[in-house]
Amino acid sequence: MSRYRLAIDMGGTDIKTGVVDEQFRIIRRHVIPTGPDRPFEVVVADMAQAAKDVAAMCNLTFKDFPCVGVGVPSCINPHSGLLVFANNTNWRNAPLREELRKHIPIPVYIGNDANCAVVGEAMAGAARGKKDVLMITLGTGLGGGLLMNGKLYLGADGMGMEPGHTVLVHDGIECTCGLKGCLESYGSVIALIRQAHEAMEKHPESCLHKDMADNGGKLNGKIIFDCAIAGDKTAQQVVDQFLEYVANGIGSLVNLFRPEVILIGGGICDAGDYLMNPLNAKLPKYVFASDIIGCPPAIRATLGNAAGTIGAACLDCM
Amino acid sequence: MSRYRLAIDMGGTDIKTGVVDEQFRIIRRHVIPTGPDRPFEVVVADMAQAAKDVAAMCNLTFKDFPCVGVGVPSCINPHSGLLVFANNTNWRNAPLREELRKHIPIPVYIGNDANCAVVGEAMAGAARGKKDVLMITLGTGLGGGLLMNGKLYLGADGMGMEPGHTVLVHDGIECTCGLKGCLESYGSVIALIRQAHEAMEKHPESCLHKDMADNGGKLNGKIIFDCAIAGDKTAQQVVDQFLEYVANGIGSLVNLFRPEVILIGGGICDAGDYLMNPLNAKLPKYVFASDIIGCPPAIRATLGNAAGTIGAACLDCM
Repeated sequence: MSRYRLAIDMGGTDIKTGVVDEQFRIIRRHVIPTGPDRPFEVVVADMAQAAKDVAAMCNLTFKDFPCVGVGVPSCINPHSGLLVFANNTNWRNAPLREELRKHIPIPVYIGNDANCAVVGEAMAGAARGKKDVLMITLGTGLGGGLLMNGKLYLGADGMGMEPGHTVLVHDGIECTCGLKGCLESYGSVIALIRQAHEAMEKHPESCLHKDMADNGGKLNGKIIFDCAIAGDKTAQQVVDQFLEYVANGIGSLVNLFRPEVILIGGGICDAGDYLMNPLNAKLPKYVFASDIIGCPPAIRATLGNAAGTIGAACLDCM
Repeated sequence: MSRYRLAIDMGGTDIKTGVVDEQFRIIRRHVIPTGPDRPFEVVVADMAQAAKDVAAMCNLTFKDFPCVGVGVPSCINPHSGLLVFANNTNWRNAPLREELRKHIPIPVYIGNDANCAVVGEAMAGAARGKKDVLMITLGTGLGGGLLMNGKLYLGADGMGMEPGHTVLVHDGIECTCGLKGCLESYGSVIALIRQAHEAMEKHPESCLHKDMADNGGKLNGKIIFDCAIAGDKTAQQVVDQFLEYVANGIGSLVNLFRPEVILIGGGICDAGDYLMNPLNAKLPKYVFASDIIGCPPAIRATLGNAAGTIGAACLDCM
């Protein structure tokens, strides 16, 4: 048996598979389209085939690995192996592990994609050597995971945790999940874009208008941060308020979890210090008794998209 | 060595000590005033003496116990033994365990009072046999604790968790802790009384006015619930809105922790079904995908004030 690990990282767009070595590096990658509108069994067969294929590219077969780890952007029950609920595919209580095992002759571990990301960062990224880690991913949505004493926190039914769907504003903006006032509705990139659009209506002088037009009329997180960094007052106010929301949401989680460190992932991290410095400056304001008991630092995740693949490959360690 | 356990449950008003038997019953109690304005060393000497005294009442000495468990209403670091921060005494980084050990010749375990309560309920109360339990105490403040896989959740520095100081309303009402919009500022008994006073100003016809006058001009949680149960529309609206806040706060915690069960403690529980039925009816509205993944039940804690003593006595099991 080789000392390599095998991972399937399923997203709404792509199924990424990878072979990970002992140093937790992805030594071979393979990507196929997800085709999320196809029947569950067909997508699962493709996932297994893609894993088999990436192994073959390394002259390996399933039997060369101790197990396969699978990350999916869904509510997962790792105990029963059910994919309980997936927004982007509309699957409900789908027997993911059982279906995968029809094609894969070795043990299969499944996990939520946000949980895989924190596992990846813990094994090979910014959280290496840390035992109590809160990771927040600021992407299209707002996701996250928690390591407690070196182990992934899953809750009684395996469906913890959903930091994006904790409350930030009671009776606030309706979230895509149907709840109201969720952190995700204020602290995700989708929310940032909405906040920028609202500000742009009041500020026709803002550079955001021109930069959006130059981008085919579409705003994104990078444009908003770039305008702010370039000195546009409207963009700066939008980013500042956005970071207040994010800091309040994260501070609230710190009051529960008291992690050693907070990892920030997601595309927005490319803004670097322009994101992390004000976020760290704002955080203590939202942390209970931070002047006495302190506030853990927020740092950037380092693996980017690879975190999900590496984390899935290491799910059996959790 | 006896099979009894020894506990010190320190509050702002009283220091309660107790001897607990193998069935987790308090077989002897002893209560002395805390005198929180006195020097730390003097209060701690009294705590140790009160523990010695309650043991003596059972014809036992310290040497008859494996350890002493101590609950305090403070931020505690159970690893270092420091009482980091106590609101009601103004102590900061006080060496609680070290000071106790000057008087107590056996191991000393220390814990936050809300954490002791969930340990007590897990050992001998409503959470017996459960492994993943969220307890919320609706008292003067709003506190709570979490059992994860049968163990007390403490966070990296031992100072988790503070559910009362998670956010419910971004930039909302200022909390006693200095943060804004904390769940405690909307879901504690103090908050309920504030909400009732606000409603009374608009509703001179409410029975709340008379019942408050009959109580020497002071409102309390029981009066508000009693008026609501008796059919007073204003009191009913106050209670209904209060329970929306509580349900939203707890639902948000469910989205993180996914416990098997939610225990509700605190004096307000005396309202019984009038509290628990609407709370359970409202909860799913605030739980992510509750129609698909379900919502754990909220049930009443059963030990009342004894939970803190029994839990302190069992801290060594956690």
